[in-house]
Amino acid sequence: MNEKIRRSPCPIATALDVIGDKWTLVVVRDILGGKKRYGEFLDGPERITTNILAQRLKYLEDEGLVLKFAYCEHPIRYEYELTEKGRALTPVLDALKAWSIEWEMKKDPGRAAGCPIA
Amino acid sequence: MNEKIRRSPCPIATALDVIGDKWTLVVVRDILGGKKRYGEFLDGPERITTNILAQRLKYLEDEGLVLKFAYCEHPIRYEYELTEKGRALTPVLDALKAWSIEWEMKKDPGRAAGCPIA
Repeated sequence: MNEKIRRSPCPIATALDVIGDKWTLVVVRDILGGKKRYGEFLDGPERITTNILAQRLKYLEDEGLVLKFAYCEHPIRYEYELTEKGRALTPVLDALKAWSIEWEMKKDPGRAAGCPIA
Repeated sequence: MNEKIRRSPCPIATALDVIGDKWTLVVVRDILGGKKRYGEFLDGPERITTNILAQRLKYLEDEGLVLKFAYCEHPIRYEYELTEKGRALTPVLDALKAWSIEWEMKKDPGRAAGCPIA
């Protein structure tokens, strides 16, 4: 693992140092929802780009949130699984989802229909 | 309020569109912890810069998470309060804190001692 940047002793700021961006938890959501492979992650409603996806998967590995396993050797292809530390983010995703449904989706109920995990 | 960018119908991605960065929830944490004024926000262990703080406070207002009130007219000075939508982020902060204490702080218990809300 890389040396990690942590701004302060506050656990909230520390959590945001790790997962405080717009994409990391989207990939965690996808793996919790059953996706394992690169092409599956690309095929989400957020249209993540290959550059961002490759960078986020590497980052998730470096942070100990994800493990990868080769499922094909020629050419090399990987499947991704959450570690225990990664699965432990489930309550964070649940809290984000509950807040969003209450405070964003009720203004526009039609939007929630296309959610992969709603 | 500005027109908002929302990537997908997923409530998790939508929540991250709003608060998926390293600073927004740090300011929400400070207001929940009793801070109200610009100088108080600057005085945290994360050493937020004036540029980022001014931009985050404006953003929090635009997203309907914070209201400001003038407490001094000459020169004009504001106090900031969370809206109901902003206070409703408390379970997100609680989940981030619990995850961080379990998965980041136990590796380095001394760090947690300086936390403003631990």
